[in-house]
Amino acid sequence: MREYARHEVRRSRERARYDVETVHAILDAGFLAHVGFVVDGQPFVIPMLYVRDGDDILLHGSIASRLMNQLGEGVPVSISVSHIDGLVLARSHFHHSVNYRSVVCFGTARRIDDGEAKATALAGFVDAILPGRAAESRPSDRNELAATAVLRVVVENASAKIRSGGPKDDPADRALPVWAGVVPTQLRYGEPENGEDVAGQAPPSVRRLLQRQNEVITA
Amino acid sequence: MREYARHEVRRSRERARYDVETVHAILDAGFLAHVGFVVDGQPFVIPMLYVRDGDDILLHGSIASRLMNQLGEGVPVSISVSHIDGLVLARSHFHHSVNYRSVVCFGTARRIDDGEAKATALAGFVDAILPGRAAESRPSDRNELAATAVLRVVVENASAKIRSGGPKDDPADRALPVWAGVVPTQLRYGEPENGEDVAGQAPPSVRRLLQRQNEVITA
Repeated sequence: MREYARHEVRRSRERARYDVETVHAILDAGFLAHVGFVVDGQPFVIPMLYVRDGDDILLHGSIASRLMNQLGEGVPVSISVSHIDGLVLARSHFHHSVNYRSVVCFGTARRIDDGEAKATALAGFVDAILPGRAAESRPSDRNELAATAVLRVVVENASAKIRSGGPKDDPADRALPVWAGVVPTQLRYGEPENGEDVAGQAPPSVRRLLQRQNEVITA
Repeated sequence: MREYARHEVRRSRERARYDVETVHAILDAGFLAHVGFVVDGQPFVIPMLYVRDGDDILLHGSIASRLMNQLGEGVPVSISVSHIDGLVLARSHFHHSVNYRSVVCFGTARRIDDGEAKATALAGFVDAILPGRAAESRPSDRNELAATAVLRVVVENASAKIRSGGPKDDPADRALPVWAGVVPTQLRYGEPENGEDVAGQAPPSVRRLLQRQNEVITA
Protein backbone atom coordinates (compact mmCIF):
# COMPACT_ATOMS: atom_id res chain seq x y z
CA MET A 1 0.00 0.00 0.00
CA ARG A 2 1.63 3.21 -1.17
CA GLU A 3 1.46 6.05 1.34
CA TYR A 4 1.99 9.77 1.28
CA ALA A 5 4.75 11.06 3.51
CA ARG A 6 2.93 11.45 6.77
CA HIS A 7 1.57 14.59 8.23
CA GLU A 8 0.94 12.77 11.48
CA VAL A 9 -2.56 13.06 12.92
CA ARG A 10 -2.34 13.39 16.70
CA ARG A 11 -5.98 13.58 17.78
CA SER A 12 -8.37 10.67 17.17
CA ARG A 13 -5.56 8.67 15.57
CA GLU A 14 -7.92 5.79 14.87
CA ARG A 15 -9.56 7.98 12.23
CA ALA A 16 -6.30 8.71 10.38
CA ARG A 17 -5.30 7.21 7.03
CA TYR A 18 -2.19 7.82 4.96
CA ASP A 19 -2.60 5.48 2.00
CA VAL A 20 -2.66 7.09 -1.41
CA GLU A 21 -5.90 5.38 -2.47
CA THR A 22 -7.86 6.85 0.43
CA VAL A 23 -6.38 10.33 0.01
CA HIS A 24 -7.02 10.30 -3.76
CA ALA A 25 -10.59 9.03 -3.34
CA ILE A 26 -11.44 11.89 -0.97
CA LEU A 27 -9.82 14.46 -3.26
CA ASP A 28 -11.59 13.02 -6.32
CA ALA A 29 -14.98 13.24 -4.61
CA GLY A 30 -14.86 17.04 -4.53
CA PHE A 31 -13.92 20.20 -6.41
CA LEU A 32 -13.75 22.87 -3.70
CA ALA A 33 -10.65 23.09 -1.49
CA HIS A 34 -9.70 25.49 1.26
CA VAL A 35 -6.19 26.73 0.55
CA GLY A 36 -4.03 28.22 3.29
CA PHE A 37 -0.88 30.30 2.94
CA VAL A 38 1.01 32.94 4.87
CA VAL A 39 1.64 36.57 3.95
CA ASP A 40 3.77 38.58 6.39
CA GLY A 41 3.00 36.13 9.19
CA GLN A 42 -0.76 36.38 8.63
CA PRO A 43 -2.59 33.16 7.67
CA PHE A 44 -5.10 33.25 4.81
CA VAL A 45 -7.65 30.54 4.01
CA ILE A 46 -9.37 30.93 0.64
CA PRO A 47 -11.89 28.60 -1.04
CA MET A 48 -10.67 27.55 -4.49
CA LEU A 49 -11.61 25.06 -7.17
CA TYR A 50 -9.05 22.28 -7.58
CA VAL A 51 -8.37 19.09 -9.48
CA ARG A 52 -6.06 16.24 -8.55
CA ASP A 53 -3.33 15.35 -11.04
CA GLY A 54 -1.49 12.22 -9.94
CA ASP A 55 -0.23 12.93 -6.44
CA ASP A 56 -0.38 16.69 -7.04
CA ILE A 57 -3.17 19.24 -6.80
CA LEU A 58 -3.80 21.90 -9.44
CA LEU A 59 -5.29 25.32 -8.69
CA HIS A 60 -6.13 28.17 -11.02
CA GLY A 61 -7.10 31.81 -11.09
CA SER A 62 -6.68 35.03 -12.99
CA ILE A 63 -3.21 35.96 -14.14
CA ALA A 64 -3.88 39.38 -12.55
CA SER A 65 -4.65 37.85 -9.15
CA ARG A 66 -2.35 38.87 -6.34
CA LEU A 67 -3.11 35.52 -4.72
CA MET A 68 -2.00 33.57 -7.80
CA ASN A 69 1.19 35.57 -8.03
CA GLN A 70 2.01 35.09 -4.36
CA LEU A 71 1.31 31.36 -4.46
CA GLY A 72 3.22 30.93 -7.72
CA GLU A 73 6.41 32.08 -6.07
CA GLY A 74 6.77 28.69 -4.42
CA VAL A 75 5.45 29.49 -0.96
CA PRO A 76 4.32 26.65 1.33
CA VAL A 77 0.60 25.94 1.19
CA SER A 78 -1.80 23.76 3.12
CA ILE A 79 -4.85 22.44 1.28
CA SER A 80 -7.85 20.91 3.00
CA VAL A 81 -10.81 19.13 1.40
CA SER A 82 -13.78 17.95 3.49
CA HIS A 83 -17.00 16.06 2.80
CA ILE A 84 -19.78 15.94 5.39
CA ASP A 85 -21.50 12.55 5.54
CA GLY A 86 -23.82 12.82 8.52
CA LEU A 87 -24.90 14.45 11.77
CA VAL A 88 -23.96 12.27 14.73
CA LEU A 89 -26.51 12.81 17.50
CA ALA A 90 -25.45 11.37 20.83
CA ARG A 91 -27.25 11.21 24.16
CA SER A 92 -24.82 13.79 25.60
CA HIS A 93 -23.69 17.15 24.17
CA PHE A 94 -20.12 15.92 24.58
CA HIS A 95 -20.40 13.04 22.11
CA HIS A 96 -22.17 14.93 19.36
CA SER A 97 -20.10 14.88 16.19
CA VAL A 98 -20.30 14.69 12.43
CA ASN A 99 -19.36 11.93 10.03
CA TYR A 100 -16.87 13.23 7.49
CA ARG A 101 -14.04 12.43 5.12
CA SER A 102 -11.25 14.99 5.01
CA VAL A 103 -7.75 15.42 3.63
CA VAL A 104 -5.10 17.86 4.79
CA CYS A 105 -2.13 18.30 2.43
CA PHE A 106 1.07 20.27 2.60
CA GLY A 107 3.11 21.29 -0.38
CA THR A 108 4.54 24.02 -2.53
CA ALA A 109 2.87 25.71 -5.49
CA ARG A 110 4.62 26.40 -8.80
CA ARG A 111 3.22 28.09 -11.86
CA ILE A 112 2.63 26.04 -14.98
CA ASP A 113 3.67 28.10 -18.01
CA ASP A 114 3.41 25.57 -20.85
CA GLY A 115 0.29 26.35 -22.88
CA GLU A 116 -0.65 22.76 -23.61
CA ALA A 117 -0.27 21.73 -19.98
CA LYS A 118 -2.43 24.69 -18.97
CA ALA A 119 -5.15 23.74 -21.46
CA THR A 120 -5.17 20.17 -20.12
CA ALA A 121 -5.38 21.50 -16.56
CA LEU A 122 -8.29 23.78 -17.40
CA ALA A 123 -10.18 20.88 -18.97
CA GLY A 124 -9.42 18.99 -15.74
CA PHE A 125 -11.09 21.67 -13.60
CA VAL A 126 -14.22 21.39 -15.77
CA ASP A 127 -14.29 17.60 -15.41
CA ALA A 128 -13.73 17.92 -11.65
CA ILE A 129 -16.95 19.94 -11.42
CA LEU A 130 -18.78 17.48 -13.67
CA PRO A 131 -17.16 14.37 -15.21
CA GLY A 132 -17.43 14.36 -19.00
CA ARG A 133 -18.29 18.04 -19.28
CA ALA A 134 -14.95 19.17 -20.77
CA ALA A 135 -15.58 17.16 -23.95
CA GLU A 136 -19.00 18.81 -24.34
CA SER A 137 -17.81 22.42 -24.20
CA ARG A 138 -15.32 24.68 -25.98
CA PRO A 139 -11.70 24.35 -24.86
CA SER A 140 -9.80 27.47 -23.81
CA ASP A 141 -8.39 29.57 -26.63
CA ARG A 142 -5.03 31.30 -26.65
CA ASN A 143 -6.32 34.50 -25.01
CA GLU A 144 -8.13 32.61 -22.27
CA LEU A 145 -5.04 30.52 -21.55
CA ALA A 146 -2.94 33.68 -21.37
CA ALA A 147 -5.42 35.19 -18.89
CA THR A 148 -5.34 32.15 -16.61
CA ALA A 149 -2.68 31.23 -14.08
CA VAL A 150 -2.43 27.54 -13.25
CA LEU A 151 -0.53 26.31 -10.22
CA ARG A 152 0.75 22.82 -9.56
CA VAL A 153 0.97 22.06 -5.85
CA VAL A 154 3.45 19.25 -5.35
CA VAL A 155 2.03 17.53 -2.29
CA GLU A 156 4.89 16.77 0.06
CA ASN A 157 2.79 15.11 2.73
CA ALA A 158 -0.85 14.39 3.35
CA SER A 159 -3.24 12.69 5.69
CA ALA A 160 -6.86 11.66 5.52
CA LYS A 161 -9.26 11.52 8.43
CA ILE A 162 -12.54 9.66 8.35
CA ARG A 163 -15.33 9.37 10.87
CA SER A 164 -18.23 7.05 10.14
CA GLY A 165 -20.83 5.12 12.10
CA GLY A 166 -23.06 5.96 15.03
CA PRO A 167 -22.55 7.94 18.22
CA LYS A 168 -20.12 6.62 20.85
CA ASP A 169 -22.14 7.24 23.98
CA ASP A 170 -20.89 6.69 27.51
CA PRO A 171 -22.28 3.40 28.89
CA ALA A 172 -23.79 5.35 31.78
CA ASP A 173 -25.85 7.43 29.33
CA ARG A 174 -27.50 4.46 27.62
CA ALA A 175 -30.37 4.51 30.10
CA LEU A 176 -31.24 8.16 29.36
CA PRO A 177 -34.55 8.68 27.56
CA VAL A 178 -32.72 10.40 24.68
CA TRP A 179 -32.85 9.28 21.06
CA ALA A 180 -29.40 8.83 19.49
CA GLY A 181 -28.37 8.06 15.95
CA VAL A 182 -27.17 9.49 12.68
CA VAL A 183 -28.84 11.75 10.11
CA PRO A 184 -26.97 11.00 6.85
CA THR A 185 -26.09 14.01 4.68
CA GLN A 186 -25.13 14.24 1.04
CA LEU A 187 -24.50 16.94 -1.56
CA ARG A 188 -27.50 16.46 -3.85
CA TYR A 189 -28.01 17.70 -7.40
CA GLY A 190 -31.34 19.23 -8.38
CA GLU A 191 -33.11 19.65 -11.71
CA PRO A 192 -30.89 21.46 -14.24
CA GLU A 193 -31.89 25.03 -15.09
CA ASN A 194 -31.30 26.15 -18.67
CA GLY A 195 -29.16 29.25 -19.12
CA GLU A 196 -30.44 32.38 -20.82
CA ASP A 197 -31.12 31.77 -24.52
CA VAL A 198 -30.48 28.05 -24.07
CA ALA A 199 -33.00 25.62 -25.44
CA GLY A 200 -33.07 21.85 -25.33
CA GLN A 201 -32.38 19.10 -22.87
CA ALA A 202 -29.45 18.91 -20.46
CA PRO A 203 -26.44 17.10 -21.99
CA PRO A 204 -25.23 13.54 -21.26
CA SER A 205 -22.83 14.69 -18.49
CA VAL A 206 -25.72 16.14 -16.49
CA ARG A 207 -28.06 13.23 -17.21
CA ARG A 208 -25.40 10.72 -16.08
CA LEU A 209 -24.85 12.73 -12.88
CA LEU A 210 -28.55 12.67 -12.01
CA GLN A 211 -28.91 9.03 -12.99
CA ARG A 212 -25.95 7.97 -10.81
CA GLN A 213 -27.42 9.92 -7.94
CA ASN A 214 -30.76 8.15 -8.26
CA GLU A 215 -29.10 4.75 -8.47
CA VAL A 216 -27.33 5.44 -5.17
CA ILE A 217 -30.63 6.37 -3.55
CA THR A 218 -32.60 3.37 -4.72
CA ALA A 219 -29.70 0.97 -4.01
CA MET B 1 -26.13 48.63 7.42
CA ARG B 2 -23.50 47.53 9.93
CA GLU B 3 -20.33 46.15 8.34
CA TYR B 4 -17.37 44.14 9.45
CA ALA B 5 -14.02 45.85 9.10
CA ARG B 6 -13.15 44.99 5.53
CA HIS B 7 -10.86 42.32 4.37
CA GLU B 8 -10.99 43.76 0.88
CA VAL B 9 -11.89 41.32 -1.89
CA ARG B 10 -9.78 42.12 -4.95
CA ARG B 11 -10.94 39.56 -7.52
CA SER B 12 -14.56 39.53 -8.73
CA ARG B 13 -15.37 42.53 -6.54
CA GLU B 14 -18.98 42.50 -7.67
CA ARG B 15 -19.41 39.29 -5.65
CA ALA B 16 -18.10 40.79 -2.41
CA ARG B 17 -20.25 41.73 0.59
CA TYR B 18 -19.21 43.15 3.94
CA ASP B 19 -22.49 43.69 5.78
CA VAL B 20 -22.89 41.86 9.06
CA GLU B 21 -26.26 40.32 8.08
CA THR B 22 -24.82 38.59 5.02
CA VAL B 23 -21.71 37.35 6.85
CA HIS B 24 -23.79 36.06 9.77
CA ALA B 25 -26.31 34.33 7.50
CA ILE B 26 -23.55 32.41 5.70
CA LEU B 27 -21.91 31.46 9.00
CA ASP B 28 -25.25 30.38 10.49
CA ALA B 29 -26.00 28.13 7.52
CA GLY B 30 -23.09 25.80 8.36
CA PHE B 31 -21.18 24.06 11.11
CA LEU B 32 -17.88 23.09 9.47
CA ALA B 33 -15.16 25.71 9.03
CA HIS B 34 -11.65 25.51 7.64
CA VAL B 35 -9.32 27.12 10.14
CA GLY B 36 -5.88 28.37 9.10
CA PHE B 37 -2.95 29.26 11.32
CA VAL B 38 0.83 29.43 11.12
CA VAL B 39 3.38 27.34 13.01
CA ASP B 40 7.04 28.16 12.35
CA GLY B 41 6.16 29.79 9.05
CA GLN B 42 4.19 26.75 7.85
CA PRO B 43 0.47 27.26 7.12
CA PHE B 44 -2.02 24.70 8.45
CA VAL B 45 -5.66 24.39 7.36
CA ILE B 46 -7.77 22.12 9.54
CA PRO B 47 -11.52 21.38 9.31
CA MET B 48 -13.26 22.17 12.61
CA LEU B 49 -16.80 22.49 13.92
CA TYR B 50 -17.76 26.04 14.82
CA VAL B 51 -20.62 28.16 16.05
CA ARG B 52 -21.13 31.90 15.67
CA ASP B 53 -21.57 33.90 18.87
CA GLY B 54 -22.45 37.52 18.09
CA ASP B 55 -19.70 38.77 15.79
CA ASP B 56 -17.28 36.11 17.08
CA ILE B 57 -16.70 32.47 16.16
CA LEU B 58 -16.28 29.72 18.74
CA LEU B 59 -14.15 26.60 18.17
CA HIS B 60 -13.55 23.63 20.43
CA GLY B 61 -11.39 20.58 20.87
CA SER B 62 -9.68 18.40 23.41
CA ILE B 63 -7.79 20.10 26.22
CA ALA B 64 -4.89 17.77 25.30
CA SER B 65 -4.83 18.96 21.69
CA ARG B 66 -1.64 20.62 20.55
CA LEU B 67 -3.73 22.58 18.06
CA MET B 68 -6.03 23.94 20.77
CA ASN B 69 -3.08 24.96 22.89
CA GLN B 70 -1.34 26.68 20.00
CA LEU B 71 -4.46 28.55 18.94
CA GLY B 72 -5.33 29.49 22.51
CA GLU B 73 -2.13 31.49 22.80
CA GLY B 74 -3.70 34.27 20.77
CA VAL B 75 -2.16 33.58 17.38
CA PRO B 76 -3.76 35.06 14.26
CA VAL B 77 -6.22 32.75 12.52
CA SER B 78 -8.13 32.83 9.27
CA ILE B 79 -11.47 31.02 9.17
CA SER B 80 -13.30 30.17 5.97
CA VAL B 81 -16.83 28.78 5.59
CA SER B 82 -18.23 27.83 2.16
CA HIS B 83 -21.53 26.51 0.85
CA ILE B 84 -21.81 25.14 -2.67
CA ASP B 85 -25.10 26.08 -4.35
CA GLY B 86 -24.69 24.86 -7.91
CA LEU B 87 -22.54 23.76 -10.84
CA VAL B 88 -22.31 26.52 -13.45
CA LEU B 89 -21.91 24.92 -16.86
CA ALA B 90 -20.91 27.36 -19.56
CA ARG B 91 -20.41 26.90 -23.28
CA SER B 92 -16.63 27.35 -22.84
CA HIS B 93 -14.27 25.72 -20.34
CA PHE B 94 -13.18 29.22 -19.34
CA HIS B 95 -16.57 30.32 -17.99
CA HIS B 96 -17.34 27.17 -16.00
CA SER B 97 -17.79 28.00 -12.34
CA VAL B 98 -19.76 27.12 -9.24
CA ASN B 99 -22.41 29.05 -7.37
CA TYR B 100 -21.39 29.48 -3.75
CA ARG B 101 -21.67 31.55 -0.60
CA SER B 102 -18.43 31.92 1.35
CA VAL B 103 -17.00 33.91 4.23
CA VAL B 104 -13.35 34.56 5.01
CA CYS B 105 -12.63 35.92 8.50
CA PHE B 106 -9.49 37.05 10.28
CA GLY B 107 -9.09 37.22 14.00
CA THR B 108 -7.36 36.05 17.11
CA ALA B 109 -8.30 33.08 19.25
CA ARG B 110 -8.45 33.18 23.06
CA ARG B 111 -9.31 30.38 25.42
CA ILE B 112 -12.54 30.55 27.38
CA ASP B 113 -11.90 29.31 30.91
CA ASP B 114 -15.17 30.08 32.67
CA GLY B 115 -17.10 26.82 33.17
CA GLU B 116 -20.56 28.26 32.57
CA ALA B 117 -19.45 30.04 29.40
CA LYS B 118 -17.90 26.78 28.20
CA ALA B 119 -21.10 24.83 28.86
CA THR B 120 -23.12 27.41 26.92
CA ALA B 121 -20.62 27.22 24.06
CA LEU B 122 -20.78 23.42 23.95
CA ALA B 123 -24.58 23.55 23.79
CA GLY B 124 -24.11 26.03 20.94
CA PHE B 125 -22.01 23.57 18.94
CA VAL B 126 -24.76 20.98 19.31
CA ASP B 127 -27.42 23.42 18.10
CA ALA B 128 -25.16 24.49 15.21
CA ILE B 129 -25.19 20.88 13.98
CA LEU B 130 -28.94 20.61 14.52
CA PRO B 131 -31.13 23.44 15.90
CA GLY B 132 -33.00 22.40 19.04
CA ARG B 133 -30.85 19.35 19.69
CA ALA B 134 -29.04 20.74 22.77
CA ALA B 135 -32.29 20.84 24.76
CA GLU B 136 -32.97 17.18 23.91
CA SER B 137 -29.64 15.79 25.14
CA ARG B 138 -27.57 15.75 28.32
CA PRO B 139 -25.46 18.89 28.93
CA SER B 140 -21.74 18.51 29.59
CA ASP B 141 -20.81 17.56 33.13
CA ARG B 142 -17.85 18.91 35.07
CA ASN B 143 -15.41 16.28 33.78
CA GLU B 144 -16.44 16.78 30.18
CA LEU B 145 -16.11 20.55 30.52
CA ALA B 146 -12.65 20.12 32.02
CA ALA B 147 -11.65 17.89 29.10
CA THR B 148 -12.79 20.43 26.49
CA ALA B 149 -10.97 23.52 25.34
CA VAL B 150 -13.18 26.27 23.92
CA LEU B 151 -11.75 29.13 21.90
CA ARG B 152 -13.36 32.45 21.12
CA VAL B 153 -12.12 33.94 17.88
CA VAL B 154 -12.70 37.68 17.96
CA VAL B 155 -13.29 38.42 14.29
CA GLU B 156 -11.33 41.54 13.39
CA ASN B 157 -12.38 41.64 9.78
CA ALA B 158 -14.43 39.58 7.41
CA SER B 159 -15.80 39.44 3.92
CA ALA B 160 -18.45 37.40 2.17
CA LYS B 161 -18.41 36.39 -1.45
CA ILE B 162 -21.46 35.15 -3.30
CA ARG B 163 -21.90 33.87 -6.83
CA SER B 164 -25.38 33.03 -8.05
CA GLY B 165 -27.20 32.78 -11.35
CA GLY B 166 -26.35 31.28 -14.70
CA PRO B 167 -23.18 31.10 -16.78
CA LYS B 168 -21.73 34.33 -18.22
CA ASP B 169 -20.85 33.14 -21.69
CA ASP B 170 -19.02 35.20 -24.27
CA PRO B 171 -21.49 36.59 -26.83
CA ALA B 172 -19.48 34.88 -29.58
CA ASP B 173 -20.11 31.49 -27.95
CA ARG B 174 -23.90 31.78 -27.89
CA ALA B 175 -24.15 30.22 -31.34
CA LEU B 176 -22.25 27.08 -30.29
CA PRO B 177 -24.33 23.91 -30.14
CA VAL B 178 -23.48 23.50 -26.44
CA TRP B 179 -26.03 23.34 -23.64
CA ALA B 180 -25.36 25.79 -20.80
CA GLY B 181 -27.04 26.23 -17.46
CA VAL B 182 -26.90 25.48 -13.77
CA VAL B 183 -27.26 22.25 -11.82
CA PRO B 184 -28.36 23.36 -8.33
CA THR B 185 -26.71 21.60 -5.38
CA GLN B 186 -27.76 21.35 -1.76
CA LEU B 187 -26.64 19.48 1.37
CA ARG B 188 -29.54 17.08 1.85
CA TYR B 189 -30.53 15.10 4.94
CA GLY B 190 -31.49 11.43 4.60
CA GLU B 191 -33.61 9.13 6.74
CA PRO B 192 -32.33 9.04 10.34
CA GLU B 193 -30.59 5.83 11.42
CA ASN B 194 -31.12 4.75 15.01
CA GLY B 195 -27.98 4.21 17.08
CA GLU B 196 -27.10 0.87 18.66
CA ASP B 197 -29.61 -0.05 21.39
CA VAL B 198 -31.79 2.91 20.45
CA ALA B 199 -35.49 2.30 19.94
CA GLY B 200 -38.22 4.69 18.95
CA GLN B 201 -38.78 7.51 16.55
CA ALA B 202 -36.35 10.32 15.78
CA PRO B 203 -36.88 13.34 18.07
CA PRO B 204 -38.55 16.68 17.21
CA SER B 205 -35.24 18.33 16.19
CA VAL B 206 -34.70 15.72 13.46
CA ARG B 207 -38.32 15.70 12.36
CA ARG B 208 -38.32 19.50 12.05
CA LEU B 209 -35.11 19.35 9.99
CA LEU B 210 -36.60 16.87 7.54
CA GLN B 211 -39.91 18.73 7.39
CA ARG B 212 -38.21 22.06 6.66
CA GLN B 213 -36.19 20.40 3.95
CA ASN B 214 -39.30 18.98 2.30
CA GLU B 215 -41.08 22.34 2.49
CA VAL B 216 -38.19 23.95 0.62
CA ILE B 217 -38.41 21.30 -2.08
CA THR B 218 -42.13 21.52 -2.64
CA ALA B 219 -42.12 25.34 -2.41
